Amino acid sequence: MIRLGIAGYGNLGKAVEYAAAKCPDIELSALFTRRDPSAVRPMTPSLPVIPLADAASMAGKLDVVIICGGSATDLPAMTPSLAGIFNVVDSFDTHANIPSHFENVDKAAREGDKLALISCGWDPGLFSLMRVYAASVLPDGKDYTFWGRGVSQGHSDAVRRIEGVLDARQYTVPVPEAVESVRSGLSPELGTRQKHTRECYVVAAEGADRARIEREIKTMPNYFADYDTTVTFITAEEMARDHSGLPHGGFVIRNGKTGENTTQTMEFRLALGSNPEFTSSVLTAYARAVCRMSAEGKRGCITVLDVPPALLSPLSGEELRAHLL
Amino acid sequence: MIRLGIAGYGNLGKAVEYAAAKCPDIELSALFTRRDPSAVRPMTPSLPVIPLADAASMAGKLDVVIICGGSATDLPAMTPSLAGIFNVVDSFDTHANIPSHFENVDKAAREGDKLALISCGWDPGLFSLMRVYAASVLPDGKDYTFWGRGVSQGHSDAVRRIEGVLDARQYTVPVPEAVESVRSGLSPELGTRQKHTRECYVVAAEGADRARIEREIKTMPNYFADYDTTVTFITAEEMARDHSGLPHGGFVIRNGKTGENTTQTMEFRLALGSNPEFTSSVLTAYARAVCRMSAEGKRGCITVLDVPPALLSPLSGEELRAHLL
Repeated sequence: MIRLGIAGYGNLGKAVEYAAAKCPDIELSALFTRRDPSAVRPMTPSLPVIPLADAASMAGKLDVVIICGGSATDLPAMTPSLAGIFNVVDSFDTHANIPSHFENVDKAAREGDKLALISCGWDPGLFSLMRVYAASVLPDGKDYTFWGRGVSQGHSDAVRRIEGVLDARQYTVPVPEAVESVRSGLSPELGTRQKHTRECYVVAAEGADRARIEREIKTMPNYFADYDTTVTFITAEEMARDHSGLPHGGFVIRNGKTGENTTQTMEFRLALGSNPEFTSSVLTAYARAVCRMSAEGKRGCITVLDVPPALLSPLSGEELRAHLL
Repeated sequence: MIRLGIAGYGNLGKAVEYAAAKCPDIELSALFTRRDPSAVRPMTPSLPVIPLADAASMAGKLDVVIICGGSATDLPAMTPSLAGIFNVVDSFDTHANIPSHFENVDKAAREGDKLALISCGWDPGLFSLMRVYAASVLPDGKDYTFWGRGVSQGHSDAVRRIEGVLDARQYTVPVPEAVESVRSGLSPELGTRQKHTRECYVVAAEGADRARIEREIKTMPNYFADYDTTVTFITAEEMARDHSGLPHGGFVIRNGKTGENTTQTMEFRLALGSNPEFTSSVLTAYARAVCRMSAEGKRGCITVLDVPPALLSPLSGEELRAHLL
């Protein structure tokens, strides 16, 4: 049995608890929290809840820890710190900072004689895998990543910060014509505005100037100004009824040429009822692989690109060759 | 530079020559043939063409050999034989016999101190990868593989063997309603007839009994009897004009449940203008990985499930993390 720890018990940490319950070879063995442990009630009543500051007390008692924190401030500190004590997996997703996060975690894991896998999930994660498989198989080609239809937490937060906004939900939506054009092998040139639209659902305070709120959203640099954005005002009741889920997904599609001029298309698509639940399922499968690679002597920092697919499965190599190959 | 050999120069071998030309780090260095070498004219005029029986004369001069033969009789003999001399990659695709082929090749490769990767291509191959990723991430789920629309060589050959048939092409076609039902997350129970239909295009000899030919096709056990099959008689000119390509493709889709009862769907789709050209592109990318794993000391037989994705790419780990992760 793999003894698994979870560090952080928000949306993602709770979803890891669910994901681990679907894995007969994984035993959830500890939960680390920065909150008062007595205030944290995991679904598994017998699960030890331990202050994050005392994590070292569990050294040698866990095979791997999944770190469930935000990429902005939590993971840059938590992952190197915990990688000195345990094998770890995180979901660090600030693409631009992956190389520096990798270096920090690599150093800490080597010093602790541990293995750490960073930037796991679906993008970065499974989508990265697909980009690498597709570019390697079709070197003469062009790939496209589309996100959505799904809730972007960062964009929803940005709208919530506008004066007069009580609550907001932002959906990123791929433009169907753009997806179809790529899918049919046409390798189009597509600008930002041509790939995605943004839909905002906003609960405004009573008496707030809705025209101003809409203008502030649509002209917000980086977040909305480069997109066709729609703003729909709804009630708090409609928000709770129609927008409480966190669906997401998207596509990685590569068009390539082989032979004289033959068109080949590879596509990977996710349609996710819940973004955190899917991400946690990916993290949990990779936690299994990290245990196995650590047992084989691997140390330092790796990513999903370094993991042989067979190590994700609870089945043996023989079973996989007989039934899934 | 990776010094690559090709064994066998049919459709697939020629396509490997094209695929290698798209890889700046691969140098095509020898072609092995069972035919009279003077009768084989590769696109690369300077390429040495060597009788397969003299393959051992190239020992130590090639980093990897891609074996391009049929799974029925060629590969069961060729792969173990060449794996004693070179690192090799093959596309053995008789699913039921993979375990015994694996054992034979593993023994030969270990005796020769070489690394062999078998059953590479898209199914088995990339589709196998997707089945393993999907089942590992969503253990509580159900997956579906659909093939087509594409030409099945085996089924085309079966029709050609019927008396009065001069030429034939058989397309395997996924049933659109079945694909949509899976794609939308419904996890339907689907029988053989509900997943695929079969379309046959037949050139009949003058005066042949077309009603008998159609009946013999539609009632042929294993090949057609369990499917809804259409038979269309065409002229030799129409066959040459409309059916000379070898397109193929298909889908691997998994529906899974996470959390309390959330539906998650993963889909991988290929739309291939040419089946042999795409297969050869996959073989060539895996030939690169085999060279690297061999250099790291790996020996014996492996499959695509054992290969870390990063090893398929000509880019370094650092470049991949910065640009594709």
